Amino acid sequence: MMGVLKGMRVVEGSAFVAIPLAGMTLAQMGADVIRFDRLEGGLDHHRWPVTKDGQSLFWAGLNKGKRSIAIDMKHPRGRELITQIICAPGPDAGLFLTNLRVRGWMDHETLSTHRPDLVMVTLLGDRHGRPAVDYTVNPAVGFPDATGPEGSADPVAHVLPAWDCIAGNMAVTGLLAAERHRLRTGQGQSVEIALKDVAAAMLGNLGIIGEVAVNGVDRPKNGNALYGAYGQDFVCADGERVMVIGLTDRQWRGLVEVTNTGAAIAALEAELGTSLADEGARWLHRARITAILAPWFAANRVAEFGAAFDKAGVTWSLFRSFARALDEDPDFSSANPIFAQIDQPGIGSYPVPGSPFAFSAAGREPPAPAPLLGQHTEEILADVAGLPGGEIARLFDEGIVRGA
Amino acid sequence: MMGVLKGMRVVEGSAFVAIPLAGMTLAQMGADVIRFDRLEGGLDHHRWPVTKDGQSLFWAGLNKGKRSIAIDMKHPRGRELITQIICAPGPDAGLFLTNLRVRGWMDHETLSTHRPDLVMVTLLGDRHGRPAVDYTVNPAVGFPDATGPEGSADPVAHVLPAWDCIAGNMAVTGLLAAERHRLRTGQGQSVEIALKDVAAAMLGNLGIIGEVAVNGVDRPKNGNALYGAYGQDFVCADGERVMVIGLTDRQWRGLVEVTNTGAAIAALEAELGTSLADEGARWLHRARITAILAPWFAANRVAEFGAAFDKAGVTWSLFRSFARALDEDPDFSSANPIFAQIDQPGIGSYPVPGSPFAFSAAGREPPAPAPLLGQHTEEILADVAGLPGGEIARLFDEGIVRGA
Repeated sequence: MMGVLKGMRVVEGSAFVAIPLAGMTLAQMGADVIRFDRLEGGLDHHRWPVTKDGQSLFWAGLNKGKRSIAIDMKHPRGRELITQIICAPGPDAGLFLTNLRVRGWMDHETLSTHRPDLVMVTLLGDRHGRPAVDYTVNPAVGFPDATGPEGSADPVAHVLPAWDCIAGNMAVTGLLAAERHRLRTGQGQSVEIALKDVAAAMLGNLGIIGEVAVNGVDRPKNGNALYGAYGQDFVCADGERVMVIGLTDRQWRGLVEVTNTGAAIAALEAELGTSLADEGARWLHRARITAILAPWFAANRVAEFGAAFDKAGVTWSLFRSFARALDEDPDFSSANPIFAQIDQPGIGSYPVPGSPFAFSAAGREPPAPAPLLGQHTEEILADVAGLPGGEIARLFDEGIVRGA
Repeated sequence: MMGVLKGMRVVEGSAFVAIPLAGMTLAQMGADVIRFDRLEGGLDHHRWPVTKDGQSLFWAGLNKGKRSIAIDMKHPRGRELITQIICAPGPDAGLFLTNLRVRGWMDHETLSTHRPDLVMVTLLGDRHGRPAVDYTVNPAVGFPDATGPEGSADPVAHVLPAWDCIAGNMAVTGLLAAERHRLRTGQGQSVEIALKDVAAAMLGNLGIIGEVAVNGVDRPKNGNALYGAYGQDFVCADGERVMVIGLTDRQWRGLVEVTNTGAAIAALEAELGTSLADEGARWLHRARITAILAPWFAANRVAEFGAAFDKAGVTWSLFRSFARALDEDPDFSSANPIFAQIDQPGIGSYPVPGSPFAFSAAGREPPAPAPLLGQHTEEILADVAGLPGGEIARLFDEGIVRGA
């Protein structure tokens, strides 16, 4: 590994999306990330999507570039070894990411008796430590009720586990910030963050709490419209659906120009007595604008107007299914330097993303496959825990650890 | 500021969600974050939601705890001053976050002639540098086509700008990782990340690329079901809608137990010849499971079963609107240590979130209001650019800078 975090070692005890994503993000920047799991694999070891042979594409996706050790956590010796691996010496080690929340031997208080400068980042469900998942946090804070067609009473949950993805990246931030603090002060610490608090804070960050508390407005469903300015989906003559954005002045002017609707928009402005150069006015009068633009899209084909849109600085996109996006878009192929076709043992060869970062001083890490469960058990026991070969062999014999 | 990043100085040239969120995240961890804007404010200065007086709740939400300088970027002296502020000396300064992509005087090559160890993080639209926003990236990669009621042909866009929120947090990670590298090597660098690449990579991370490329499956809409295991929304006797999760063994057993559906589930298992203890089997047969559970929810009220669900370890949530969430949930009040009721000048007093992180060695920063545009112009010119009072006065007189 040659990445920007080369030399850093992070231990991960995790399952599901957020913390595995955090560890993977660090691994893809060059850190040595060790994920430990119980002998039969963690809760996400067989998580869907799976191949026809039952191999988890989810595990493969979220554990790329890590090392894996499989170990019996119910056995006292297993617990000792995990403690030793988490608290192994080295100025760039002693960094632990988890969402497992095991009290006693694996909490910050106990672990830091073994390494007082340990940095431990824990993702909680809610701030009380109760379980919460993306699928429950999202309805609790209100997004599904504001999602979907205008006027519908049915809530629509998001499909991207967005809170997990955000919280996972925040866990990386928390770890790097605490490690920076340790470098300056020598002091380790416990960093906690709750999935629900991440969502609650974002509601405030985006102005939604103010909208309720100050304006007394409970945002309704607005279909696929871009909130607060102009952006709308249209069906075209060829049956394609496109999303078209008129958020900035340039985008808006470009959209009016290419669709040749300047006269109709000017007439609407005169009728309303307002300038649609103001983004808030575009939002308030979006239905009228859409009524002007929709016939144009219904009469035109993407193949005909796409290039003109690009040229005029209109920001737009097709709606595509996942398969169509992969099939048509070179950004999902090795034409994009973040992607490479690699072989994932047990699954086969398919396009795999590395880190989306380009660090000019560190170069790009090519994507690495995910480990098989226990693939690095032996080398981790030797290199990190510092055990002699005979002892490692005994651990295998006694079934306290296993390999791939 | 007493936060974990105390002493760090970051300069931000930005608009909209991702980079303002990145700067705010750093400010809420104690960094001195200076946002510069043109004299009339950036593209997001009046972004909706706005108050009845036209004050932006969006600006207030995403710029909390920063300092603001308003400056004429078309004037050569304005450009010089911004360069001086970005490249000001100090081992913990020289950190620049941007999505403005100004070529020439504000690109990494030019700025680093003034401070060779500058760390500059740039968020692009796509990897070619073309504009892209959350609202176009999302349909391009496929999520709206997979969102919404089963069988519907209409795409549903998410309302949370999830890609912006993820990319903003990744920008923080990129900055901290590059600053760590600089501390060890003395070397600055340019860090680039594209919004669309963030989304494309996540499609791979979550196993969706593998699902298409290896399994040949283009995931259809699955309503509000939790993908890959069991989780479903139900309407209850009191008209409430709840999301109920049976992802882990414990959640699933708890759900069957409290709803007293053990016999019916066992009969279903016998009929299918499969164990629903397997999460993949629960996913495949989710419609049958839902048919067993739905009558129970339709006959019971949340007030009656909520406590039993909690006791049995079932993970569940109500669906609520934004306003109802704020009204009912103490997690949005100062009962939650991340929130405080604070006065935002020009807007008034309302509940505002600070950082969702709890750093044990640094304490919690109370949330701070967002600056007014240009509120810190004078002090930044004095403290950071090091200008004498007479020169600062001339800059105000000549209209090259302005205050709040």
